[in-house]
Amino acid sequence: MSKGITKRSEDYSRWYNDIVQKADLAENSGVRGCMVIKPYGYAIWEKMKAQLDKMFKETGHVNAYFPLFIPKSYFGREAAHVDGFAKECAIVTHYRLKEDGEGGIEVDQNAKLEEELIVRPTSETIIWNTYKKWIQSYRDLPILVNQWANVVRWEMRTRLFLRTAEFLWQEGHTAHATKEEALVEANKMLNVYSEFAEKWMAMPVTRGLKTESERFAGALETFSIEALMQDGKALQAGTSHFLGQNFAKAFDVKFTDKTGKEEYVWATSWGVSTRLMGALIMAHSDDNGLILPPKLAPIQVVIIPIYKTDEQLQKIREVVEKIMQKLSDKGISVKFDDSDTQRPGFKFSEYELKGVPVRLAIGPKDLEKGTIEVARRDTLEKSFYPMEGVENEVERLLNEIQENIYQKALDFRKAHTRKANSYDEFKKLIEENSGFVLAHYDGTKETEQLINEETKATVRCIPIDVEEEPGKCMVTGKPAEHRAVFAKAY
Amino acid sequence: MSKGITKRSEDYSRWYNDIVQKADLAENSGVRGCMVIKPYGYAIWEKMKAQLDKMFKETGHVNAYFPLFIPKSYFGREAAHVDGFAKECAIVTHYRLKEDGEGGIEVDQNAKLEEELIVRPTSETIIWNTYKKWIQSYRDLPILVNQWANVVRWEMRTRLFLRTAEFLWQEGHTAHATKEEALVEANKMLNVYSEFAEKWMAMPVTRGLKTESERFAGALETFSIEALMQDGKALQAGTSHFLGQNFAKAFDVKFTDKTGKEEYVWATSWGVSTRLMGALIMAHSDDNGLILPPKLAPIQVVIIPIYKTDEQLQKIREVVEKIMQKLSDKGISVKFDDSDTQRPGFKFSEYELKGVPVRLAIGPKDLEKGTIEVARRDTLEKSFYPMEGVENEVERLLNEIQENIYQKALDFRKAHTRKANSYDEFKKLIEENSGFVLAHYDGTKETEQLINEETKATVRCIPIDVEEEPGKCMVTGKPAEHRAVFAKAY
Repeated sequence: MSKGITKRSEDYSRWYNDIVQKADLAENSGVRGCMVIKPYGYAIWEKMKAQLDKMFKETGHVNAYFPLFIPKSYFGREAAHVDGFAKECAIVTHYRLKEDGEGGIEVDQNAKLEEELIVRPTSETIIWNTYKKWIQSYRDLPILVNQWANVVRWEMRTRLFLRTAEFLWQEGHTAHATKEEALVEANKMLNVYSEFAEKWMAMPVTRGLKTESERFAGALETFSIEALMQDGKALQAGTSHFLGQNFAKAFDVKFTDKTGKEEYVWATSWGVSTRLMGALIMAHSDDNGLILPPKLAPIQVVIIPIYKTDEQLQKIREVVEKIMQKLSDKGISVKFDDSDTQRPGFKFSEYELKGVPVRLAIGPKDLEKGTIEVARRDTLEKSFYPMEGVENEVERLLNEIQENIYQKALDFRKAHTRKANSYDEFKKLIEENSGFVLAHYDGTKETEQLINEETKATVRCIPIDVEEEPGKCMVTGKPAEHRAVFAKAY
Repeated sequence: MSKGITKRSEDYSRWYNDIVQKADLAENSGVRGCMVIKPYGYAIWEKMKAQLDKMFKETGHVNAYFPLFIPKSYFGREAAHVDGFAKECAIVTHYRLKEDGEGGIEVDQNAKLEEELIVRPTSETIIWNTYKKWIQSYRDLPILVNQWANVVRWEMRTRLFLRTAEFLWQEGHTAHATKEEALVEANKMLNVYSEFAEKWMAMPVTRGLKTESERFAGALETFSIEALMQDGKALQAGTSHFLGQNFAKAFDVKFTDKTGKEEYVWATSWGVSTRLMGALIMAHSDDNGLILPPKLAPIQVVIIPIYKTDEQLQKIREVVEKIMQKLSDKGISVKFDDSDTQRPGFKFSEYELKGVPVRLAIGPKDLEKGTIEVARRDTLEKSFYPMEGVENEVERLLNEIQENIYQKALDFRKAHTRKANSYDEFKKLIEENSGFVLAHYDGTKETEQLINEETKATVRCIPIDVEEEPGKCMVTGKPAEHRAVFAKAY
C-alpha cells in the first residue's frame, strides 16, 4: 500500500506499530516507556471511557480520587502485593532541584524525603488505608468506588498501548460485608467488561479464572476476559479480583455487623486500561489501516466532495449541509472534509487509514442523478444510493458494520480455537500460533511451568460457562476436571 | 448549629475546613499534602469537568495525553520556567525496591535512573518537546490541544482543594503561526473561564492582566480571573498565558510560513484546577454548610418522605415516583431518600450541609391536601405548592437559585470593592480585609514589593474593560494610567 503500512502477513509487529503511528493514535515520548496519546487516539479512549463510566454508574458505582503517591511503608504491608510490584516501580526520593553552579540544575540532596514515595502501580494500599477511616459499621457498606487515573509500572520492554511504563486506567475498589457479596461484585464487573468488549469494541472475549501463578498480587481469585488477536496470540483485556480479606487485614479494616460482632471487610478490585486501545487495533484492523467499530469511532461518517470549480463545491456544500443535519439528528458524528490541500484520492486513503466506518463521496454527476457514493471501511465495498433518505441507509450500515466486525472476529476465534488431546498435538498447535488451544492439565503450578518453559504458552484462563469435560492431564496423565485455555500471549 | 460547623464569623478558616470535611468533599490522606477527593466532592468536580470540556471543544480544542514524568534536562531549558518550579517538585530517582533483609523493603540502589525524572508540575516542556515533531509547516498550525491530568507541586503549606501537593487540572497548550493569533487565543480562553465561573459556578470574577512578579514562569503575559471570597480575600481562579516564542525557542520549534520563511512558533497555555472547588465552596456557603449552584449540584432535588407506617410510605412512594419521572424528563437530577435509618429532621440537616439546592418533603397530610413542601437551600425559605405541576415550580426555582446566589456574590463584591486615594486609606482598607481595593501605583516591581511587605496585599490584576482613570501612584506619586486591583489573597 502507498500508506506505508507493513503488511500483517510480513511482519505483524511492525504492522501494529505502523497503524498506531500512521493513524495518529500514539507515539513514543522522550521519557523511556511513556507514550504520548495523540488527539485521534485520545478521542477513541474518551469514547471508551464514557461508555465504561456509564456502565459503572448504572451498576451503582461512584467515582473518587486518591493520591498518586504511596508511602513505602503502606506498600510493604501486604506481602504478596509487594512481591508483585516492588520490582517495577518509580520511586520519589527528593522534593527540590537546585542550580549546579555550572548553569544546569541538579537534585538538592538536602531535600530528601524521610520516607520514599512510590508512584502508584495500583491503589489497593492507599485506598484501604483510607477505607479504614470510612468503615466502622455494616451501615457503611458496601463501598462501590471507582477511580480514573494514571499508573506507573517500570516495564523493561514496552510497546505503545500494550505495555507502557505509564498508562491510563480505571480501578474499581469495593468493600463488602460478606464474602458472597464480594464474589458477586467481582463477577458482575467481569460481565460489565465482557459486555463492553463484545457490544462496544466488537471483540469477542472468553471469561475465566486465572491460575494461581497468573493471579493479581494480593488476590484470592482473579477473573479475566481474554481476547484473541489476529496473529493467534491472546491478550488479557480486563481483570476483576476477589481480594478476600487480605487488604482489610493488612490495613486493619473491620466493621461491626448487625449482631454487634466485629469482622474484617471483604474486597474486590477491577480494572481496564489503555491496553484496550491495543486490543481494539489488533482485533479488527487490516493492511489498509485501522478498522473501528462504529460505536467507538470519533468520526463515524466522513463526506468528501469531488469537484473542479468553486461553483461545483458550493452546490455540493448545499446538499451536504442537509445530509449532515439529518445524520446529526440521528446522533451520528459526521465530518465534511472540504479542505483544498489534498486530492479526494488522498483523503479516501487517509480516512481508511484512520478507520472511519463510512465514507460518502459526492460530485457533480451525483448532483445530477440524485445519488451518492457510500463506501464502508470494513469490507471496502462501495455502492450508490439515492441521496434522498441516505441518512437511513448510513444508520443501517453503521449497525451492520458493528455487527459484521464482531462476527468476523468471532469466526476468526472459532477457526483458531482447537482442542489438543495429547501433549505432542498441543506443542504443534502452539508452535503454529494457532490461537486458543483447549487442553487438559492437572492444575498444578509445576505442570503449568513446565508447559510454559517448553512451549512459551500460558494458561490464559479456566473458562467459565463451559461444559464439564473431565479428562487426563496431557503432561502427567493425572485427572483433570476441565480443559484450560492455553495460548501465547501479549 | 448541631452540624458541628464552626461559624464563619468565629473562624473562617475552620469554617471552610469543616464544610469540606463534613459535606464529604475531601480529606487529607496519609501522604503529606495530598488529598483524597471523596465521591460527593468528585461528583461536583465531574460536573465542572464536563462543562469545561464541552466549552473547550466548542472553541475547537481536542484532548490528548502527555507523560507524567519530565526528564530533568527538559525542565532546565527555559530559564524562567525552571526558576519558578525547581523549588517545589517531586523527583523520581530510582525504579526498584528490594527486601532489606529485615522483613521490610528498601530502595534498590542498583536501580538508579541515569537521568532523574520530575513529576510534572505543569507540562510546557514535555509538550513543546513533542510539538517539535508535530510542527514543520504553517499547515500544521494551529495546534489546539488540552490535557486533563494530575500535577504535583511540593507546596510546604497545604489546604484541601486550595493548595495541595497533588491536584487535578486541565492544561491547554496551543501553538500558532502569529503573535496576534496566540494573543487572541489567550484572551478567548480567559473568556471561557470567566463565562464558566459566572454562569456555572455563579461566581463573579474580575478579568485582568498579572504584573510581572505574579506572571507564570516562562510567560510574556499572564491573564487571570480573580474572585472575591466571603472573608474579603481574593482567589485566583484560572489563568491564561501568552508564552510568546519562549518555549518554541527553548525546544527549537520552527515552522515554514507560506512564503517559505522559517519562524519560531507562538504559544499559549491555560489552566484551571481542583482549586475551583475551594472557590466554589467559599463563594456561596453559609453556617449551615455548602451552598451549590444548581448547575453544578450532583443532586439538584432531594425528596424526603414523612411517615409513620409502611402503608403511608407506600402511598407517598407512588406519588413521588410520578414526580421523579417528571423531574427527570426535564433533565433535573433527583434523589428520593426513603432510607429508614435516620429521621426526617436529620436528613433535612444532612442535605442542607451538602448544599442540595431544593428539598421536597411530603407526608400524609400533603397527600390529603394535594400539596408538597418545597424548601430552597440558598435562602432556607419553605413554601407549600400544589403537587400538580410542582415540577415546573422546581425548575423555575432552580433557575432562580442559580441567579440569586450569583447576584448575592455580585452584591457582596460590589460592597467590598473600594477605591483608595491615598496610601493611608489603602493600608486601612487592606487591614480591615475589605476585599478588592482599587488604587493607583506606578507599575514598578519595587513599589509592588514595598506595598506587599507593608500590607501583605498583592496586585491581583490590572483589570481589563475598565475605564481609563489616570492618576498618581499612592506610594511614589509618579503617574499611573489606571487603578490596579489589590487584595490579600489565597
